[in-house]
Amino acid sequence: MTVLAQFGAGRIGQIHARNVAAEGARLKYIVDVNATAAKGLATAVGAAVADQEQVIADPEVAAVIIGSSTDTHADLIEAAAEAGKAIFCEKPIDLDLARTRACLAAVDKAGVPLFIGFNRRFDPSFASLKEALGAGRIGKLENLTITSRDPAPPPADYVARSGGLFRDMMIHDFDMARWLLGEEPVRLYARGSVLVDPAIGKAGDVDSAVVVLETAAGVLCQVINSRRAAYGYDQRIEAFGEKGLLLAGNRDARSLQTWSEAGIAGEKPLYFFLERYAQAYRAEMAHFLACLAGKAQPKVAASDGLRALELAEAANESLKSGQAVSL
Amino acid sequence: MTVLAQFGAGRIGQIHARNVAAEGARLKYIVDVNATAAKGLATAVGAAVADQEQVIADPEVAAVIIGSSTDTHADLIEAAAEAGKAIFCEKPIDLDLARTRACLAAVDKAGVPLFIGFNRRFDPSFASLKEALGAGRIGKLENLTITSRDPAPPPADYVARSGGLFRDMMIHDFDMARWLLGEEPVRLYARGSVLVDPAIGKAGDVDSAVVVLETAAGVLCQVINSRRAAYGYDQRIEAFGEKGLLLAGNRDARSLQTWSEAGIAGEKPLYFFLERYAQAYRAEMAHFLACLAGKAQPKVAASDGLRALELAEAANESLKSGQAVSL
Amino acid sequence: MTVLAQFGAGRIGQIHARNVAAEGARLKYIVDVNATAAKGLATAVGAAVADQEQVIADPEVAAVIIGSSTDTHADLIEAAAEAGKAIFCEKPIDLDLARTRACLAAVDKAGVPLFIGFNRRFDPSFASLKEALGAGRIGKLENLTITSRDPAPPPADYVARSGGLFRDMMIHDFDMARWLLGEEPVRLYARGSVLVDPAIGKAGDVDSAVVVLETAAGVLCQVINSRRAAYGYDQRIEAFGEKGLLLAGNRDARSLQTWSEAGIAGEKPLYFFLERYAQAYRAEMAHFLACLAGKAQPKVAASDGLRALELAEAANESLKSGQAVSL
Amino acid sequence: MTVLAQFGAGRIGQIHARNVAAEGARLKYIVDVNATAAKGLATAVGAAVADQEQVIADPEVAAVIIGSSTDTHADLIEAAAEAGKAIFCEKPIDLDLARTRACLAAVDKAGVPLFIGFNRRFDPSFASLKEALGAGRIGKLENLTITSRDPAPPPADYVARSGGLFRDMMIHDFDMARWLLGEEPVRLYARGSVLVDPAIGKAGDVDSAVVVLETAAGVLCQVINSRRAAYGYDQRIEAFGEKGLLLAGNRDARSLQTWSEAGIAGEKPLYFFLERYAQAYRAEMAHFLACLAGKAQPKVAASDGLRALELAEAANESLKSGQAVSL
Repeated sequence: MTVLAQFGAGRIGQIHARNVAAEGARLKYIVDVNATAAKGLATAVGAAVADQEQVIADPEVAAVIIGSSTDTHADLIEAAAEAGKAIFCEKPIDLDLARTRACLAAVDKAGVPLFIGFNRRFDPSFASLKEALGAGRIGKLENLTITSRDPAPPPADYVARSGGLFRDMMIHDFDMARWLLGEEPVRLYARGSVLVDPAIGKAGDVDSAVVVLETAAGVLCQVINSRRAAYGYDQRIEAFGEKGLLLAGNRDARSLQTWSEAGIAGEKPLYFFLERYAQAYRAEMAHFLACLAGKAQPKVAASDGLRALELAEAANESLKSGQAVSL
Repeated sequence: MTVLAQFGAGRIGQIHARNVAAEGARLKYIVDVNATAAKGLATAVGAAVADQEQVIADPEVAAVIIGSSTDTHADLIEAAAEAGKAIFCEKPIDLDLARTRACLAAVDKAGVPLFIGFNRRFDPSFASLKEALGAGRIGKLENLTITSRDPAPPPADYVARSGGLFRDMMIHDFDMARWLLGEEPVRLYARGSVLVDPAIGKAGDVDSAVVVLETAAGVLCQVINSRRAAYGYDQRIEAFGEKGLLLAGNRDARSLQTWSEAGIAGEKPLYFFLERYAQAYRAEMAHFLACLAGKAQPKVAASDGLRALELAEAANESLKSGQAVSL
Repeated sequence: MTVLAQFGAGRIGQIHARNVAAEGARLKYIVDVNATAAKGLATAVGAAVADQEQVIADPEVAAVIIGSSTDTHADLIEAAAEAGKAIFCEKPIDLDLARTRACLAAVDKAGVPLFIGFNRRFDPSFASLKEALGAGRIGKLENLTITSRDPAPPPADYVARSGGLFRDMMIHDFDMARWLLGEEPVRLYARGSVLVDPAIGKAGDVDSAVVVLETAAGVLCQVINSRRAAYGYDQRIEAFGEKGLLLAGNRDARSLQTWSEAGIAGEKPLYFFLERYAQAYRAEMAHFLACLAGKAQPKVAASDGLRALELAEAANESLKSGQAVSL
Repeated sequence: MTVLAQFGAGRIGQIHARNVAAEGARLKYIVDVNATAAKGLATAVGAAVADQEQVIADPEVAAVIIGSSTDTHADLIEAAAEAGKAIFCEKPIDLDLARTRACLAAVDKAGVPLFIGFNRRFDPSFASLKEALGAGRIGKLENLTITSRDPAPPPADYVARSGGLFRDMMIHDFDMARWLLGEEPVRLYARGSVLVDPAIGKAGDVDSAVVVLETAAGVLCQVINSRRAAYGYDQRIEAFGEKGLLLAGNRDARSLQTWSEAGIAGEKPLYFFLERYAQAYRAEMAHFLACLAGKAQPKVAASDGLRALELAEAANESLKSGQAVSL
């Protein structure tokens, strides 16, 4: 039975910890600066509260899950890598490109697997779109539209330390784009505005953005982001190709329609990432554990985290200059 | 150019008169007890106002369209038949079975074509369902669900002279059922209630009803009627067979969705028969004219009007007795 | 921690056993005539293999789950009731009405809770339809259409001992009907045919059926069954009322559309009850455990099993006589 | 009764001529270099064949419809304007910006109304989206996605004289964008590729393109074009705003679904512009005639043709330079 430790007992930490248990692996330790949170989660999943040194020093711990705050990721990755432990880390590795590269070099040197938590690759809708694409259902891909809108904007103080929309939010879409395009973008154009919340603008960020990516083959991909959608979490992908179009739409919880004087009404999409991606988080953890057990090859490479961040950096540059950026 | 005359200048008369014009035939006369209505429509379509005698006596009139009140249908049919004119008549021929049979005998003797206005056979949705069924898309038909609800109940005085829900409203569904089943029902069970408007009950009728038809082959067909639907005209057919299901749903006018905090909303269906069956009325008239020109064989026989009325009678009998009726 | 034992280690047993574990209760014993199946499931969920006597005799076992073959249900219920244990039993209690009544009397005398596994009440779609109905979203209910088709017919030998379509399959729909109508049907008309598989006819059963239920208030409910649907498990409910219509449609797994030369294609529904009702089984067990813990009132009464069976019996009678049956 | 003359008896000419008749106006002359086409259409609608001089000289002709080839538009507009006739002209006025401006100056000087055939403004879906937007249904507009794909690429020789994708095809989308944004774009970025047909590349054009428009307020609009879509004419608009999203989707002809082993299939969209925009063409002509009768104010200004062409020019410039263009 694989033994793991987890850094972070917040929202996402609770998801991962329970999924580890449900998949039949053992979570030995929970580490969190918030002692109450650590204690609560540890009790719930039958783990012990520990600190970083303890986790790193325990040879029984084969892998760590890093779900703590972004600024701790790189240090924890390096410590775990040095101790020879496999790593599952929430995106991003770090908000700084140089630090990210250094960190990956350390991982590379240590020869441990580093798995970045790009959960959307494990969403049933997107995974089946990817599969259909790979199976040639629409022939050669020619255009990709990724729409991604959060239900409500984050608090301004979160925005300030988030690294900005491109590194915090669109980074998931950049990963989706790279994954589905099947080749690296060579050109990027980014535009952004403050339309949702002036506080986000004051924090130096945008809350609405469009990015156009382009591959060497001339395939174009539009990514559309907003920090707020009145109808809830909007997560859709349209892949257009020579033989047709694949559409992974939003999903609702119950498939109940109400026909009334007001119209023909369906339900809103699943509210936010915890609901929409519940299955994805579970499948992602199952996959990570299968990789540890040597039963699967990782579907997300450490370099995927770096590549997505590089696109986010390029988007920031394009936004600033107002011009397209060659990659 | 085919020359026609029309009895009736009401709502349905206006539809037919304009469709005759649009199809390039000539409407020579309009007859209506309401002189103002007759005058108005005649002016609009370039016809003359006339009375019955004039129309029947004019040898130039090759065909008549009967869209006047139900109690005039049988007499007009007989008069036109005797004069050797082709006939397009709105359903029903008459509310009385014996009168209907006598009328058909007269038509038969005269050897003129009598076309009953079962417009739904010409609706694009239902016609394509019929076509797909005939083409074997779902294999052998095993079950049929016909849902038919009006947006709002008729006034009580209309109900009183309508002949009742089965002869006035469900008669259209009986025709759909016969047309799609492809064999005559041998058994019928009808239930009805007054749930929408007590005035309808006082007029001796029901406003909500379900009928189960059954063929010799054991295919079952449920017809579901209501005199009122808050969301508008509900006209749907589900045909289930060995290889699948065909679903002809409601149609809306614009295909506009609104996604908001209140949900994912589509438009209501086209409001009532004038809107929903506009294309059907046009296609029906085009077909009638094509038959007159010898370019098509009639898709609706005079006997179809009789058969549907017989089912309505049987439904009344079943409703009264509370038991199934063998046909 | 509630301690339970389970009879039956087949398909449905595996679902229940895992749900008990996931809900944090303890499954102490697994009983099954098939020793291999018992052993396999017991190992998977950390239970012991036992026989009936052992389970009944163990005072630590507070409740039993009965998921063994139908002919064992009544005896097991009575044994467990006598021992003062709470009972969760898959439908039906017994195929025989008299035996069912005797069994319920025993349960009543023992004063233990008996929960019948009408899982569909816990399906998110149907539960939210029920909730919306209760909240008055469509006003007074006027008509109900329940469509229920299996993806593929069962083997003929299953049919022979199943009790027939009405007691084996439509019994679920009868429960749905009673639950949603909110009043007992007073009249029933049933028709059935052999259209899918002649072997089912040879076994004395029908494979296609329609039943019309009617309440004292005049609300009509059509139930439509088939043992086979080419597109998979068809589980839909339409509730029509004075203010509109609630439609609980089929659900698919991934919400992926393919637009191609062949048309606009969506996915088929979740294949069969294990997939479609996975959430319902989980919620049902959670509810049963909550009831045991005194945290919820049972949403399914023992008498619900009897009432549904009575409707199935009446349907058999109506099918035989060809006439409606008063209840 | 308004009297009109029409230049052009091709596909679009046939549509307009019949719509004029259906709207109760009189089409006196048909002009076309193809004598057979002119004769055929003139006969069909009861008009006479004439040449340009005749039309211009006839004082009875109050308005002309220009549906001839693009290279004749500007000259015909000027001639008609000088003669004081109202003008309905298919887009574009001319492929050359300077020529377009000169032509508009002539129209302006003559003081006659010039109506550009931006038919999509009259499509029921898009018109109702515009209306809902204006009524504040989604609050302030924040993002706009216009997807526009033809079913099949035009022949290479058409491409050669079409003025290129931006002036020939996307010009319609530019008009939609301006119309819906409600303010002029101030910045544009265009990318295009040859993915569909190498012959289009050889003709110096692209067949796949994405353009990002931006307003001074920071609203972004993506336009996505392809010259080929396997599933037919793809004409969709998504307007996203602070209170939700408006989605004008594709429309099909019959609303028939087929559920089978292959999936849940709907129909393909209406095949191409003649089918999809049939209602729009009719409404557009009705509106033009209403304007002539002084009963409506023109919904499309002559300058709209110029503005859309300017955007197309800017797109060509951006495509060439690889950089965004300020407008």
